[in-house]
Amino acid sequence: MNDRSTSSATIERIGAGQVTTLQDVVAVEEPMEIRIVSNGESHRVAVTMRTPGHDFELAAGFLLSEGLIANREDIIDISYCLDSTDVQHYNVVQVTLAPATFVDPEMLNRNFYATSSCGVCGKSSLEALRTYCGVVANDELRVDESVIRGLPTKLRAQQLVFSETGGLHATGLFTRDGSLMTLREDVGRHNALDKVVGRHLLDGSLPLTRSLAVVSGRASWELMQKAAAAGIPMVVSIGAPSSLAIDLAVEFGMTLTGFTRVEGFNVYAGSHRVQLQQDFVV
Amino acid sequence: MNDRSTSSATIERIGAGQVTTLQDVVAVEEPMEIRIVSNGESHRVAVTMRTPGHDFELAAGFLLSEGLIANREDIIDISYCLDSTDVQHYNVVQVTLAPATFVDPEMLNRNFYATSSCGVCGKSSLEALRTYCGVVANDELRVDESVIRGLPTKLRAQQLVFSETGGLHATGLFTRDGSLMTLREDVGRHNALDKVVGRHLLDGSLPLTRSLAVVSGRASWELMQKAAAAGIPMVVSIGAPSSLAIDLAVEFGMTLTGFTRVEGFNVYAGSHRVQLQQDFVV
Repeated sequence: MNDRSTSSATIERIGAGQVTTLQDVVAVEEPMEIRIVSNGESHRVAVTMRTPGHDFELAAGFLLSEGLIANREDIIDISYCLDSTDVQHYNVVQVTLAPATFVDPEMLNRNFYATSSCGVCGKSSLEALRTYCGVVANDELRVDESVIRGLPTKLRAQQLVFSETGGLHATGLFTRDGSLMTLREDVGRHNALDKVVGRHLLDGSLPLTRSLAVVSGRASWELMQKAAAAGIPMVVSIGAPSSLAIDLAVEFGMTLTGFTRVEGFNVYAGSHRVQLQQDFVV
Repeated sequence: MNDRSTSSATIERIGAGQVTTLQDVVAVEEPMEIRIVSNGESHRVAVTMRTPGHDFELAAGFLLSEGLIANREDIIDISYCLDSTDVQHYNVVQVTLAPATFVDPEMLNRNFYATSSCGVCGKSSLEALRTYCGVVANDELRVDESVIRGLPTKLRAQQLVFSETGGLHATGLFTRDGSLMTLREDVGRHNALDKVVGRHLLDGSLPLTRSLAVVSGRASWELMQKAAAAGIPMVVSIGAPSSLAIDLAVEFGMTLTGFTRVEGFNVYAGSHRVQLQQDFVV
């Protein structure tokens, strides 16, 4: 959690004719510009509406999930931009790429804009995604169904900012035995996933073929695409999946669950990774 | 509701070691490209991930809320694109603008991309928005608090696709006495609002200064911006607002409620439009 992730608001609480003025805590939403410096040239890549905090992770994860970089070695430096008077701009993050990192000029000319739920961004089909995601289908991850049923509760228990504001999405990365590895919150659910992926990119621990991502909301095409780019073979969503999220999961051999609750869940693709309890009984 | 808005999926329902295979209905998510033809030249404006249905409304509403057009007269024609063999592409919508419609070339060169939650799209500050939204603060809308408390239930009751899939956002436009004017659903909550606004743009009934928008999720900066562009003075959200959503509401003199339930709600800005029950008792 970050000091900049929440702010205070004076509100009027209205119920059945009664008005109470009180102080409330709300989730901060602010634009963040992601720039890359490649071979001495600076380019604006995206502007995303995000909750401040873990900004460098967000920038790194975004560049990976959009296919601009492939691994830790592609990044030399990440910093907040300084203006001409050396004042730091906390809403502009600059990622300096290694000289050898190939950046598609087409992608830069596009000058695309992202937001809390962006991602089409010029990729005209699943084919484009395939060029930089090949690892998912080869994993050996298997997860006990009772572990899956317990994950939403574990995610919620760790959502510190949500507890305060009721207004943030989260992505949690878990091991197959249900241990939390990394959790990030953001007003944009896609940013929360980018932050998780960015953390592991910076730690040099990609691809994440041995872990599963739990997402607080619905599963969209873009969330699946970002998970695929990071090599995450299983996405557990608390809400409903879209048709395209299912298509992508099938296409890339991923597992996708929806409406995940302690009582049970739906498997929309890749059920071979879900181990039933009787599998353990000999 | 539209035939293309849902699709069928074979799922495995897993609960406590039991597996049931069944047919389920999921919300369709597909990319839609919005193109404009201005003075004979065709430009790609945006690609948005959306639920098919009401596509022309979505295109019209998007162009309005992004500031590319201002009223019904700016549009001469909306159609699905035909390719060289005259096959219609249902995921490409072309809006032909009136010759007199000024389109900022900067905006077109930007070639921005949108998604279910887009909207930054080059607008660097609230100032840009101010240039095309001036009507909101001048309205005389007043709404009884008991009407507001009843709106989420009314919205949900009309969400036909949500009932089937559990996976769609909605925006409902209501009158001050709580009558539903227009409801649209979409995987992207911003698209749902764009569709509502687009409907009224095409009907020539903008600005919507006498109505309020009820949104199924949280209130983000972008939802408020789209409402402001259409002249909607009050946004009733069922979820939490972000800090920037509140800032925008204050800046433009709009009313914003959150956590709206039948028991009560929070007012984050513009409480003068909320009439308490005792106001009616003499």
